[in-house]
Parts: sequence; structure tokens; C-alpha cells
Amino acid sequence: MDYRRTHTCNALRKKEIGKVVTLSGWVHRRRDHGGLIFIDLRDRFGLTQLIFDPEISKEAHVTASSLRAEWVISAEGKVRARGEGLTNPQLDTGEIEIEVTTFEVLSKAKTPPFSICDDTTETHEDIRLKYRYLDIRRGGVAKKLAMRHQAMMATRSFFNTEGFLEINTPIMGRSTPEGARDYLVPSRIYPGNFYALPQSPQIFKQLLMVAGMDRYFQVAPCFRDEDLRADRQPEFTQIDLEMSFAYPEDMTTLIHRYLKDLFKVCLDYTVPDEIPSMSYHDCLEYYGTDRPDLRFGMPLVRVDAIAKASEFSVFKEQLENGGCVKALCVKGGATISRKEIDRYTEFVSKFGLRGLGWMKRQEEGLTSSIVKFFSAGQLKELEEKTGAQTGDLLLFAAAGEATVNQSLDHLRRLIAKERNLINPDAYNFLWVNGFPCFEWDEDENRPQSLHHPFTMPHPDDLHLLETDPLKVRSHSYDIIINGYEVGGGSQRIHDFEVQKRVFDALKINAEEVNQKFGFFIEALQYGTPPHLGIALGFDRLMMLLTKTENIRDVIAFPKTQKASDVMMQCPASVSQRQLDELEVSIGTHSGGQFPAKRK
Amino acid sequence: MDYRRTHTCNALRKKEIGKVVTLSGWVHRRRDHGGLIFIDLRDRFGLTQLIFDPEISKEAHVTASSLRAEWVISAEGKVRARGEGLTNPQLDTGEIEIEVTTFEVLSKAKTPPFSICDDTTETHEDIRLKYRYLDIRRGGVAKKLAMRHQAMMATRSFFNTEGFLEINTPIMGRSTPEGARDYLVPSRIYPGNFYALPQSPQIFKQLLMVAGMDRYFQVAPCFRDEDLRADRQPEFTQIDLEMSFAYPEDMTTLIHRYLKDLFKVCLDYTVPDEIPSMSYHDCLEYYGTDRPDLRFGMPLVRVDAIAKASEFSVFKEQLENGGCVKALCVKGGATISRKEIDRYTEFVSKFGLRGLGWMKRQEEGLTSSIVKFFSAGQLKELEEKTGAQTGDLLLFAAAGEATVNQSLDHLRRLIAKERNLINPDAYNFLWVNGFPCFEWDEDENRPQSLHHPFTMPHPDDLHLLETDPLKVRSHSYDIIINGYEVGGGSQRIHDFEVQKRVFDALKINAEEVNQKFGFFIEALQYGTPPHLGIALGFDRLMMLLTKTENIRDVIAFPKTQKASDVMMQCPASVSQRQLDELEVSIGTHSGGQFPAKRK
Repeated sequence: MDYRRTHTCNALRKKEIGKVVTLSGWVHRRRDHGGLIFIDLRDRFGLTQLIFDPEISKEAHVTASSLRAEWVISAEGKVRARGEGLTNPQLDTGEIEIEVTTFEVLSKAKTPPFSICDDTTETHEDIRLKYRYLDIRRGGVAKKLAMRHQAMMATRSFFNTEGFLEINTPIMGRSTPEGARDYLVPSRIYPGNFYALPQSPQIFKQLLMVAGMDRYFQVAPCFRDEDLRADRQPEFTQIDLEMSFAYPEDMTTLIHRYLKDLFKVCLDYTVPDEIPSMSYHDCLEYYGTDRPDLRFGMPLVRVDAIAKASEFSVFKEQLENGGCVKALCVKGGATISRKEIDRYTEFVSKFGLRGLGWMKRQEEGLTSSIVKFFSAGQLKELEEKTGAQTGDLLLFAAAGEATVNQSLDHLRRLIAKERNLINPDAYNFLWVNGFPCFEWDEDENRPQSLHHPFTMPHPDDLHLLETDPLKVRSHSYDIIINGYEVGGGSQRIHDFEVQKRVFDALKINAEEVNQKFGFFIEALQYGTPPHLGIALGFDRLMMLLTKTENIRDVIAFPKTQKASDVMMQCPASVSQRQLDELEVSIGTHSGGQFPAKRK
Repeated sequence: MDYRRTHTCNALRKKEIGKVVTLSGWVHRRRDHGGLIFIDLRDRFGLTQLIFDPEISKEAHVTASSLRAEWVISAEGKVRARGEGLTNPQLDTGEIEIEVTTFEVLSKAKTPPFSICDDTTETHEDIRLKYRYLDIRRGGVAKKLAMRHQAMMATRSFFNTEGFLEINTPIMGRSTPEGARDYLVPSRIYPGNFYALPQSPQIFKQLLMVAGMDRYFQVAPCFRDEDLRADRQPEFTQIDLEMSFAYPEDMTTLIHRYLKDLFKVCLDYTVPDEIPSMSYHDCLEYYGTDRPDLRFGMPLVRVDAIAKASEFSVFKEQLENGGCVKALCVKGGATISRKEIDRYTEFVSKFGLRGLGWMKRQEEGLTSSIVKFFSAGQLKELEEKTGAQTGDLLLFAAAGEATVNQSLDHLRRLIAKERNLINPDAYNFLWVNGFPCFEWDEDENRPQSLHHPFTMPHPDDLHLLETDPLKVRSHSYDIIINGYEVGGGSQRIHDFEVQKRVFDALKINAEEVNQKFGFFIEALQYGTPPHLGIALGFDRLMMLLTKTENIRDVIAFPKTQKASDVMMQCPASVSQRQLDELEVSIGTHSGGQFPAKRK
């Protein structure tokens, strides 16, 4: 029989009753009941119930009794209404069923290593990844991949409409002396030489501006050979943009329009008309991080002055050593037990904080073992600064700025999560700007670029390049969603005189410039337009849109945290002939089949 | 000044006269004339003439005199009509010019290594590639890249509308035991093991069908470490498709609709409503190749029977040795000189043909030194079979089938090109089907797959699998445009019983199957829907759409025929630290900086 479908398994409704249709798909479930055989037929769109009735086709009924889960069949029959009380409101097709007249088994299936029809059973991720094709068939990942496709379509459509051209830049490029570790590809034609997979198309996108392409974008595959964190993959995708003759505000309004479009298309979610901005300085001051999650409040409150005036030596010592004291006000936290607070203390110790001070705001005022070190006026002032009201808990961290910030950032997020302060359906958007241009490199004993040496210093700070480079802010912007850095970019230097001043500030001499940035610096001298760009982490965006914490859920064939593909069993050994052709040999320590143990 | 543009350099027309505008771009040309300075300002969209008049701004006029080619400037001024007789009908903006009131130099430029404004001067391609950003700025490549973007948009939009999901498959995969040479990527985490860059997403796209994704596509980056022909690149792009529950005719009609859409969007060219099909057998019989260029006629005509009946021993010997005799009829070719025919003879000798017979059809009939070996009736018959008319030339090749076909295919195309038989604006589309499933592998002394072992044998030939495998045709289809194989695909085997019969025909035992195709064969046994696919060479399509013979014209940053990037200077040496981390070492024969000589 012709296995082409008239409908998918999620298409038929009451209005098709009486029609003769052909459906093809997988046997999701079989039930034998009262002389009838019921099959839920499945495809990626949904389920439709097939009925095999010996009264209608004796032959079909007999054959159907041999059907097993995951066999692929094609069935022809008439659409009919389900009987009284037999409709299934959970299913889009729940009001109808198909009286099968003829059908064919297209292919049989071995018993899968985990159930396809019951996706509530926890299956170890290694097994899911090994049989990724079955894992996808279960539906959850398939839906995320479908949304990923939709998001890519929306992205391309948006930037096309805005006059951007998608231009594919090379995947086999040159290893860069700075940044993360490159994946290398040995050259056969030039033995002993290597290509590198790109960590980003940064150099190419700037060259495209030099080339006059005006507005470039790319859904760009990028690669980093790093020890992987849970939310990283060795291959990842970035939405990469660069535009000429524009200012940062043009980029931020463009990306705002893009996010509005993307969230509307994918989720029918309305991104607000205003995305607030916060300076790097304020982010650290009030949230202890440059990517604050503003879905909830609980800001960090600096109480240095009060602490200094108090009698509490623990705080005063830290202040004298150049540290600071900040407080968190946990609304309704006065009921939190000592034991819980001890757990918080242990949690922040991972970030180097040696203790947490605390006070509870009771009816009678602030109480705790440390209030005695504060005057009534100081306690009053603490309440005012922190906004503590009856029933709240104040937590205090005193240490160096970095330690206080990191500890309270993590603690703030932990408490918010544990106390359900976060609306899981909310999205919070924030621009962060005013990053420092340089940071001090202790090893090299000279400033180094926070982003890269082509980042434009903020025009207001240009005069500080020679006198106080660490005070120079860059002309850059990061977009933060729900506390994740989803993207970042900057205005680039287009004036070679400014570029030279930046190299001087970095203490890089002409020879080093040439060695490190060679042809690119050359290119910038042939007439470079003012230009700026941004890169958005597309996998991260998809995690936010599909509400998953697992990056592997939004990638069809992901790698494990050890950068291996357990389905294909790769990386793998290759033949000696292949190595000989490349004139490379593997070290004496190496060898052994995947999954070799990591040294 | 604010360098943001009100218009691009190709936007202003007469209706904007009187408006105050800001343009930014590159100084294309400067002319000083009658006390005025004229600047042609350029961006990727076009040119606009700026006038610097000391009467309007003395300061701007003075500064403008220092402007050099390729400096980037931003200028504000009023749009005015060009004077009588000074309009330029060649330019879209040729009726207006801008009276500049203020302007600013945004960046200066060194003298480029070749002229940007005069792109008629031939520049060696190595120089163009070294300064690719300037080469693109000249405009020709930029226009092709813009069309490439447009074609990618049209492609994605089309397949999205047809229900296909774009799913990105991994770039770091596993080396395949068969096919072309892989690029390898050493693993740091599993030393001695390697990833491979994909030659195509073949395995993944079939797995996505097993996963139930129904319809997949991808604009897929692919990689092959081959010695490059002129029209190949180590990195190339393919439009990759796979669909379930469909037959080859569904795929060919889909691709036909796609090509209609693509050619309409990019060129406003109407692909005909019918794309003819030709069998592999007929292609070879009538054109000597499986990808005939049908923009012109001149088919190969088999004259075995006449040759056999003749007295011409040269032909007869070839026939006796199992060869054949075919003729080409060159219309109006009777005026072609002996010397030209000698050149043809030399040309075909490259393909192993030892000589060309010829006859000219004069008023009196066929003439040549060999007509004496043919009877009047045989000559008459030759004329009828070849359609030779007065003024035509017949060329004969006699040898083994393969040699005759290859020689006459090349000769036919050479003659068509030299005699201008090809309309450069025409596109000719052809489906080729009925390829053999297997070919005989002399080395291995067993059949091997012409495509791959998952290609479905033609249903009409399934019964021959055991008895006469070389007669089995595959269920496959190639799309040929203007004699180029633009794409090919096939129905895949979804029934494991058929798959086993194919492995048997290939004399591959279970162990070898497991070793070569392992996890993929496993996957096919968990319920595989009938599925089929195709892959289209996107770079080749772009070459056809942009009418270039040079694949590097349609790629932003291409590699040379030695797979090197002369701009970035890569492949390049890497640090010992990088090699140590990967535990690989380079052979004693290797080393030396790019561009090392190839061994």
C-alpha cells in the first residue's frame, strides 16, 4: 500500500468524521479490549487512536494482534466519532478514532532500552544520549528542537528585514594566541601546520565591516576546547552581528526589537518596551555580580558607615583591612532557624567568606547576639538602609569586596530559589554597560583587555588612557536575561591613532602587535568605518525559551561534559594510515579506545 | 559629528532635492575641477557625488582637498539637482549631488595594493585573496555574497513552509571508514583519539528520521580533505534534506518547486514547469556522461551496426574487441579545417582515444578519406542516423565504451563552447535516475555501493539482488543543471531484511557490518520509517545563479586550491604547549612555517 499520509497523527477532528484517511507512524500503545484492538498511533505531531474490529476487517484484526511498541505502520480507514464517554479531552484528536480497513507493517522494532510511551520514568542521561534517536522520539527534546528551528527562522527573518546579510565565515581558521583553548586540525598538505576551529567569528566580522558589507550577521557554529561546565558544550552556536556607522544605542535598540520579536514568535511573550540599563559598578554594588537576576529584589546594601561607627570588631577589622560590609534583607526571614542560617554560612564559605552575621527584626526591634555592639541609633539606621520590617532577617557579610560580592550574589540566588521568590514564567531583561576596558594582569604586571584590544574605550574616558588606564570604561554592553549573560558586545576602535594608544596602555610594542594581530591590524589601516557588534549565545537563549537548565536539551546530538558523543562513540582512534598522511603521531602516553580514562 | 546616515550612497533621487542629508562611506574618487572638489562617495549600495564648494563652506573645501581614495568620511549637506548636461545616466543617483556643508574624516587609509575604483584591472587572485577585505569592497564579490544571503533566506523560507525543521548536526563527529579523506581533530581529554569534521550529515539525517522528526533540512557546512579541483573547497556548504513516509517522486517534485522558488527570488528566472528525466543508461548512451549539459544538442549516435557492416578495419577491430563506435554531428562543421580536427584529436587523446574519424557532408554527399570503406547505402544510413545535412561534420570515436563516452562527452562540450552553441543566460534542468546500485570493485573482487549501502534498490530490481546484483538499479535521483551535478539523493532502506540482503550482495559479513556501521545499524532496528533524502551543493548552485566559474567568488573567505588561507596565513604552526596538551607530535618530515612547500 501507498504509505503516504493524508494527515499527521495530530490533524483529525470531528469535522473529518466519515472521511477515509491514511495515517503512518509508530505504535505507541496497543490495548486489546472486548474483542477489539486499539492502537495509539504516534508521530512527532501527536497521537491518533486506531480501532481494529474483526467485523470491519478480520484480516487486519488478526495481523494487528502481532503489533508491538515502536513498530512503524501505515493504516487506511474511516474517521468516526468515539463512543459516548470514550472521548479523551487530553488529546487534540480525542474525539475521533479510525476504523482500520487495511494496514501494513513498514518496519518492526526491537524492544527499546527505555520506554518511549512513558516519559515520566527517569532514565539516566547517558542512556538517553546513547540512544538519542529514541530519546528524541519521546517528544520532549523534539519539541525543543522544533522551537529552536522556529527561533532560527525568526532570527534570520528579523535581521534580514533590518538589512543584515548572513555571511558564513570559515570554520577552518588560524589558531589565535589569546583566549580559550582552540581545537586544532592538522594539515595534510602543509605537514606540521594546523587549522583551528573558531571560538567566534570576531576577526572575520570586523573584516567584513572593513570590506564595506555594512551589516553582517550569522548563526555561527563556535568551538572551545575547555573543561566543560554543566551549561557549556564544546560546539556551541552564537548569533553574531556587526554593523557600521552606528553607536551603541543603535545596537541595544536593535537587540531589544529582536528579543521582542523572538519571544513573541516563540512564546507569545511580550518583552517590555523598556529594558533598563545598569552600570557594571552598580551591578557589583547592589547585586555582587555583573549579571544580576532581577526577577526578584533583595539587593545588597552597603552598611560600611554604620559598621565603622559600631563596636563590632569583626566588621571593623574587615573595614580597616580595606574590606566592606554588606547586608541582605530576607523578607519574612525571621522564622528561618539557626540551623538554616548555619547552612547558609557553610554555603558562602565555598566563596571564601568566613562567617555570616545576622539580625532578626522582631516586633521589639532588631535582635541577635550581635545587636549589643550597635547603638539604638545605628540599629535604627540599619533598619532604614536595609528596609527591614517586622518578620525580616538581615544577613551580613564582611570581607574584601570581591569575596563579599561573590558570596552574597550566590546566597541571594540560593535564598530566592529556596524561598520561591522567582516566578518561573517571568523573564527579566537588563543591559549592563560601563565595563572597565582593562584589568590588571598580576602575572604579566601590566593591564590586559577585559574583552579584546579592539574594544573602543568610552569617549568620556579617552583622556585617561595614558594617566589612569584602569579607570577607563569600555564602550560595551551586555544583555542579561534572568541572571544569565546572554550576549555582549562593544563599539570597536576604527581610528588607528586610538588603537595605538590602547596598545601603548596595554604595553604591547609594535613587534608584539604584529606577531599577535598581524594581518588584522594591517586590514584596519585601509579605511575602516566606525563599527560595532554583539554576539548572543543562542543555546543559552534556547534554554531560556524552552525553560530548561540542561543545554543538552536544546541540541540534537550533544556531547557529554567530557566532550564525548556516547552514541557515535567519539572521539575515537583512527587508522595509522590517516596519521601517517598527516605526519602526526600520538604521544607515548596516549592511545586506547574511547572511552579511555581521562588522565 | 553624528556619523549615522540618513541615506545609503544609492538612495537619493530627484525627489529628495532640497533635503539635508548625512551620508557616510568611502572616498571612491576625487576630482578637483574649476575651483570645486568632487568626491564620489561609495558604500556597498552605490555611489553619490559630493560637491565641496568654497562658496558654501570654505573650511570643508580646504579640508576636502586632502582627501585620498578609501578614506572613510561622513558628510552633511543639501541634495541638489546636477547641472544641465552633468547628469550621469549610468548611476542610480546620477541626477543629484550633495552640496557639503560639514564633514568629518572618520578614518584614513593607506594606498591599497590594487585599485578599488577600477575593477577592470586584472589583479592576480593571490593578491585579491590576501586582501580579501579590499577585494570584497570592489563590489563584484559583495554582490555575489548578497545574493548568497538572499538564496539562503529563500531556501530556509521554502523548506520551513514545506514543514521541514532545520536541525544543526554536530561538526565534531566520528571518522568514517569509507568515503573521502576526513579532517581530524585531536582530543585533549581522550589523548590519542580524534574527532572528524563531517563530509556530510548523512548518518545524522537518517537518525533524525528514526527519531521521528519527519522532515529535516540543514544548510550544512561539510568538509573534505581532498586534493582540490578548481571548483572544490575544503569547506563547502550543502542543502541537506531528509523526509519520512514519502517516495522519490515526492522528493523530485519538492526540489522542482524549490528550484522554481530559488531562481525566481534570486534572478526572476522562471524554471520550466517540467523537468525532464533521463535514465543513467540513456545519459551515457546519448551524452557519454551521467550529467549531460542539455543547453545544446549534438548527442552521441551509436553506429555500431553500420561500422560492423563496413569495410573500415579500424572500427571493426574495436567492435570485435567489445568496443563501440559513436558519432557526433557538428552542425555547420564542414568548414572546420583539418588543423582544427587535429586539435580535437589531440584533445580527446587525453581521455585515451587514439584517433577521431571524420566525414564532411558536402552537396555531393559525405566526403573524407574513409568514405571509401562504406557502401553508398551505409553512408546514406549514417546520414539518416546522425541527421547530417549539407555543411555538417561527422566525428567518429571507436574504442571501449568508457573511452568513447568520456572522449565524446568532453569533445561535445568543447565544441559547443568554442562554437558558441550555449546561451549563457539559459538554465537547463535534468533529473537522472536509475543509477546502478553497485559497481564491481576490482581490488576487493566484490561489488561495492555506488552511493552507500543504505541506498534502496529499485523495487523492480529487488529480485536480482542475489542473482545479478550488478544489474540492480538504485532508487536514486540526481539533479543536473547545465551539465553540473547539483545534487543527488535516494530512497533509503528502512526494512532490515532488505538491508541484510544488500549486505549479503556486498559480501559484507555481520562482524564487518558491526565494525563499519555499528551504532547506526543498531538504530535502524528500533522502528525506522520509510525515508529518503537529497543533498544539494549550495556553492555550486550559487556559482550557477551568479554565473561564475570560480567557486571562490561565492565564498566570503575562501581557501586556495592548496587549502590555505593566504590572508590569515593558515594553516600555521602552533605552540609546543598546544601540541603537548593534545599529546600529539609532528613527524620528523614536517615543520616549517606556512607556506611550506608541499612534499
